Amino acid sequence: MIIRKKEHWFKMLFVWHGSVLPGLLPRLFLLFILSLGVVYLRGTIFSFKVPLNPAPLTLFGFVLALFLGFRNNASYERFWEGRKLWGALLNTARSLTRQALTLKNLKESSVSVSYFIQLLDAFIFALKHQLRGTDAYEDLKNRLHEDHLKTVAASKYKPAVIMRLLAEWVQHAKDEDHIDSIQQGRFDENFDKLSDILGGCERIVSTPIPYSYRVLLHRTVYIYCFLLPFGLVDSLGWFTPLIVVFVAYTFVAFEAIADEIEEPFGTEANDLALNSMCVMIDETIHEMAGQKIAISPKMTQNIID
Amino acid sequence: MIIRKKEHWFKMLFVWHGSVLPGLLPRLFLLFILSLGVVYLRGTIFSFKVPLNPAPLTLFGFVLALFLGFRNNASYERFWEGRKLWGALLNTARSLTRQALTLKNLKESSVSVSYFIQLLDAFIFALKHQLRGTDAYEDLKNRLHEDHLKTVAASKYKPAVIMRLLAEWVQHAKDEDHIDSIQQGRFDENFDKLSDILGGCERIVSTPIPYSYRVLLHRTVYIYCFLLPFGLVDSLGWFTPLIVVFVAYTFVAFEAIADEIEEPFGTEANDLALNSMCVMIDETIHEMAGQKIAISPKMTQNIID
Amino acid sequence: MIIRKKEHWFKMLFVWHGSVLPGLLPRLFLLFILSLGVVYLRGTIFSFKVPLNPAPLTLFGFVLALFLGFRNNASYERFWEGRKLWGALLNTARSLTRQALTLKNLKESSVSVSYFIQLLDAFIFALKHQLRGTDAYEDLKNRLHEDHLKTVAASKYKPAVIMRLLAEWVQHAKDEDHIDSIQQGRFDENFDKLSDILGGCERIVSTPIPYSYRVLLHRTVYIYCFLLPFGLVDSLGWFTPLIVVFVAYTFVAFEAIADEIEEPFGTEANDLALNSMCVMIDETIHEMAGQKIAISPKMTQNIID
Amino acid sequence: MIIRKKEHWFKMLFVWHGSVLPGLLPRLFLLFILSLGVVYLRGTIFSFKVPLNPAPLTLFGFVLALFLGFRNNASYERFWEGRKLWGALLNTARSLTRQALTLKNLKESSVSVSYFIQLLDAFIFALKHQLRGTDAYEDLKNRLHEDHLKTVAASKYKPAVIMRLLAEWVQHAKDEDHIDSIQQGRFDENFDKLSDILGGCERIVSTPIPYSYRVLLHRTVYIYCFLLPFGLVDSLGWFTPLIVVFVAYTFVAFEAIADEIEEPFGTEANDLALNSMCVMIDETIHEMAGQKIAISPKMTQNIID
Amino acid sequence: MIIRKKEHWFKMLFVWHGSVLPGLLPRLFLLFILSLGVVYLRGTIFSFKVPLNPAPLTLFGFVLALFLGFRNNASYERFWEGRKLWGALLNTARSLTRQALTLKNLKESSVSVSYFIQLLDAFIFALKHQLRGTDAYEDLKNRLHEDHLKTVAASKYKPAVIMRLLAEWVQHAKDEDHIDSIQQGRFDENFDKLSDILGGCERIVSTPIPYSYRVLLHRTVYIYCFLLPFGLVDSLGWFTPLIVVFVAYTFVAFEAIADEIEEPFGTEANDLALNSMCVMIDETIHEMAGQKIAISPKMTQNIID
Repeated sequence: MIIRKKEHWFKMLFVWHGSVLPGLLPRLFLLFILSLGVVYLRGTIFSFKVPLNPAPLTLFGFVLALFLGFRNNASYERFWEGRKLWGALLNTARSLTRQALTLKNLKESSVSVSYFIQLLDAFIFALKHQLRGTDAYEDLKNRLHEDHLKTVAASKYKPAVIMRLLAEWVQHAKDEDHIDSIQQGRFDENFDKLSDILGGCERIVSTPIPYSYRVLLHRTVYIYCFLLPFGLVDSLGWFTPLIVVFVAYTFVAFEAIADEIEEPFGTEANDLALNSMCVMIDETIHEMAGQKIAISPKMTQNIID
Repeated sequence: MIIRKKEHWFKMLFVWHGSVLPGLLPRLFLLFILSLGVVYLRGTIFSFKVPLNPAPLTLFGFVLALFLGFRNNASYERFWEGRKLWGALLNTARSLTRQALTLKNLKESSVSVSYFIQLLDAFIFALKHQLRGTDAYEDLKNRLHEDHLKTVAASKYKPAVIMRLLAEWVQHAKDEDHIDSIQQGRFDENFDKLSDILGGCERIVSTPIPYSYRVLLHRTVYIYCFLLPFGLVDSLGWFTPLIVVFVAYTFVAFEAIADEIEEPFGTEANDLALNSMCVMIDETIHEMAGQKIAISPKMTQNIID
Repeated sequence: MIIRKKEHWFKMLFVWHGSVLPGLLPRLFLLFILSLGVVYLRGTIFSFKVPLNPAPLTLFGFVLALFLGFRNNASYERFWEGRKLWGALLNTARSLTRQALTLKNLKESSVSVSYFIQLLDAFIFALKHQLRGTDAYEDLKNRLHEDHLKTVAASKYKPAVIMRLLAEWVQHAKDEDHIDSIQQGRFDENFDKLSDILGGCERIVSTPIPYSYRVLLHRTVYIYCFLLPFGLVDSLGWFTPLIVVFVAYTFVAFEAIADEIEEPFGTEANDLALNSMCVMIDETIHEMAGQKIAISPKMTQNIID
Repeated sequence: MIIRKKEHWFKMLFVWHGSVLPGLLPRLFLLFILSLGVVYLRGTIFSFKVPLNPAPLTLFGFVLALFLGFRNNASYERFWEGRKLWGALLNTARSLTRQALTLKNLKESSVSVSYFIQLLDAFIFALKHQLRGTDAYEDLKNRLHEDHLKTVAASKYKPAVIMRLLAEWVQHAKDEDHIDSIQQGRFDENFDKLSDILGGCERIVSTPIPYSYRVLLHRTVYIYCFLLPFGLVDSLGWFTPLIVVFVAYTFVAFEAIADEIEEPFGTEANDLALNSMCVMIDETIHEMAGQKIAISPKMTQNIID
Repeated sequence: MIIRKKEHWFKMLFVWHGSVLPGLLPRLFLLFILSLGVVYLRGTIFSFKVPLNPAPLTLFGFVLALFLGFRNNASYERFWEGRKLWGALLNTARSLTRQALTLKNLKESSVSVSYFIQLLDAFIFALKHQLRGTDAYEDLKNRLHEDHLKTVAASKYKPAVIMRLLAEWVQHAKDEDHIDSIQQGRFDENFDKLSDILGGCERIVSTPIPYSYRVLLHRTVYIYCFLLPFGLVDSLGWFTPLIVVFVAYTFVAFEAIADEIEEPFGTEANDLALNSMCVMIDETIHEMAGQKIAISPKMTQNIID
């Protein structure tokens, strides 16, 4: 995720990092060359004049913008839903921590509560690794008891198995009469929420926007950009390449951003900063349990992951 | 559902599988022939010149795109709601599994829990078959006790009947004092969710987008495409057929995709992969219950159902 | 509601039943005549030439389409919310049935459960009749005990009174110790949902889209269609009436459909099939309670109510 | 709120009551005069010809419509959320009435239940008066016990204080063992909903759409309408004033309606009929409690408040 | 937040405070100068005529408006979600106050309840300070016991820690048998809501709209405004600067407002009035607890924070 302070409107016109422009330069350059050629040949191909004028391009540009807007909305909603799910993860982690701390008789030793928090932590890191397809072992090693670690490491859906361990912790607490079944029920409701968060994230990862949409829009955007110089050359003359590249930049960049945030759990520049969020949840639930947390050094870079 | 890795922007222009283009070729070819004829006759029919120009077509193309955008949004929302319901099914199945495992006294034998999971499984497969209108018998045979199988097989709304069996399992557990009525209440809340999921899927299947919308938009799209060559021939000349087919492709393809995902539980290329999801839920709830699951072979094809 | 199988794209162009076209023909014919007149007089009225050209019509057609899109979205959301409420009614009816069957000690006789289901049934039919403004007496007669029938028949908000009867059934069950107050609480949560469904349906019926919107859009659509031939006659000549009717068909039909689905509980062609849904809910809750249900004859007509 | 039966499409073109047209006539007349002047002077001001043509007006009209559509959506959502909140108030009032009637032992005298319903009633009327900024005393006088009345009348946030009285009624019922703490919990959940409804209504009243939006759109709409005649006079001639007034009517009326429904709890023609809803809730909760309600006379006027 | 009474449509055209116009004047003035230059040179740069005409600008203006509309929607949704979260904070604070007052035996002394309300208050102020990045010490000092104050002041996520203190208050109340675990469960559900509100606010603050969108739209808006005079000078002549500034005002102001409300918890003119809301919540929960609240002086200024 890109975090930048608000900048002066003039400086913002020339931002380089955080813009998708760098990645698109080759394509736009290609289009610029093409437009130059079209201007030079005055829109003829093999001495056939391509009789395109702005009218159909206006119509079609607008249609394209509408459809691109649809694609863009769908992508942004996926991005924002992903963020909401991780926000809900934070909330539920805090709620469960609070419950582990307060839904029991006061006299008990606090040992097991701290393991409950470790389990929660393990759930969060396991989820992150599952979503990014990376290896969770390092992050689980310090957090889980040995036998738990073995079970979890061997399983395919790690967070689901850790959720069971969390519920078993509560089951033990109830069997030892630290809590009654009403309080167990309150824990259980929050486990349901964990389950919803887990499944929600898996849903976003496993079900992209229908592929046919993406192919259709991709094709339409690029064919449109290819036709643009032929349509504009008669009226714009030598100014054509500049306008074509400007229009194409907007269309292509919009599609590129939509493509990037469609899968919000990746590691591209505009994706969610899962690592930072894991650290933040880790900090806050330990702080709630009364532990001192280290003050994190001031962030200096613009892009956090 | 079509699953493809992200491809280079240039290769993506020529994707064949996963595009709706193949199915639309005959219609587009027809339109191409028509446009050629219009060009050849310079827009005259029986020596009457059709005096159409781009102005009304621009206006109308815009209106059409707006209305098509509405239809498309509605279809996509149905698709995504269908996916959310199946996601909720996964979540609730996991939650119920967790509850069956942990909301009881520790000492009990685990026999009945594994039947509870079988019942859950049966619910999921029965739902899939109901949504696709296929026969559920094969999938239920191995999962249900004989008398249960008989009851379910004879009933019209199979998942609803299985939901009753699930609730009866809990009722028995309570009568034998493995759980108390508070814990029964927690199960019951998740059964309510199952009920909502079941009814939600049935709602999407039984209530399409109002038919009059579909007729109206279908007609408008095709008449519009038919009028296009007459309106463009004067200004575009021999280039008309290419532009007409390009514009028509976008409109017709958009309508075709919207039509396909409107009923997300079907078996068309862009529909939801209910089979894969059934397998996945089956795997995860068995894994949570401590069973080893087979590692599924790496998926190779692009389209999963 | 209109239920039709997917048809070939070509056949669908000529569908008659299920299209709103038949009802609009008189208006479109009027407009056709007007356009013919305009063409004949070349856009003059009393020898004043009406100097309208396509430019303001293009502008205004856009604006109109946008505003019509808003109206249309609002109507469709009302339609879909109505459908969701009836879906929730199905879900809650099934949940309550399941609770009546399983949230009690096993040994009890099943007599009273079947009356509970009758009460539920009565609630559903009473709701349908309230929404459509028809007489509920026939449907309640067979389902309610005599004294209950008298109370309900005399009351103004029948479903609300039946909801009280349902809650009293549970209160009796608790007083006779078949259920405890926790289980009563679970019933009560679903009664809250019934209350939300009832109120939600009443809300849609009693609060239409603000009337001023409808007047404004109606006027604008018809004045626009009236101005169209004057604006197009100079450039389209004898082709004007065809284009005018085509454009007007789209605008007027869109408004007509929006108008129809705005009140989804009516009996127009595109409204919700409340009757079929009542029958379906009736079937499924009786089946869950172990009763055999008659196989309904294959539906043959296209329009169900 | 304006309630009118569906009318014939032709009659609806000339509706006067319920349209915002009457209030806008002076502005439109001003614009008509201006346009006449522009036509008379052929678009010159102090012998400078204003060289405006339809092209930038088309562009800008479209942009304006889009932005107006945004404002309009936001207003309509506020209107509809306000309606939903009052719908939820009805539902929760019914639910609480049902709970007061059935979540207790059967043998108790019904005196206190009727006071609970009075308290509910008082809550509803107090909310209405708070939202409209009117004096609640008259409506509270007959419903509250004397000491309660004194407390409520002296307080600033009356409904919140009444909510406390409702909860105290339940607390007393529990202390006298008519209900247990589980049943108290069910009441308490519905009190939470009351709290959400109260706060939701206060939110809509206290937080309008950001003021800068309204200023910006207002200005843009009126400047646009002012420029219109200059842009159209060259091509439309003496027809200009009619078209200008027609276009301006649509834009200005759209803005006016959005402005009206933005604050849905007011007393303008399109605002919510809070008075009628209060009466309706009052009726239904008394009917549920077994009281006979008077049949309200058939409504004859078109506008209810 | 800007609070102004509804004004006459004519006066509203000249509002200064509350409009974003003042902040944009320098940019618009720059553009005005540029347009004057373009008019003076008749669109030539170094004797090259820039051959731009309105056609591509019309096309692109549409596209830009659509994309700007997307950005604007996303910003407004963030604003409104922020407001909803603070509304939910009010609701939950009232609910918790009501629970503290009524979910216990009647005979108890009220001392501790007033501290519970102080803790709630502290939560609200701590949240405000966290969201605005200001120092919470002054506001916490008078509300918290000394040892609590020390713990909270030293912690990074202050509201989360205060939430734990709230839950501990309930835990103590239960240990001393003032409430049972069912009533504790009801408190706990509202603590879950507090947790959701806290995390929701943190989400909005920490995750802006993807930066690439903002850069792309910012650039496109400003380049577009820069190109406008070249495209319009040929047809509008000396009228160009006025139209250019008018169009640019709309686009730039729309972007500026979107930018302002995107972070709704700041202190810009259109941001949420967190201070006033804190005071209001403080008042209402103390009033519910039976305390007299001072009548706040009539607000006179237009902008509250």
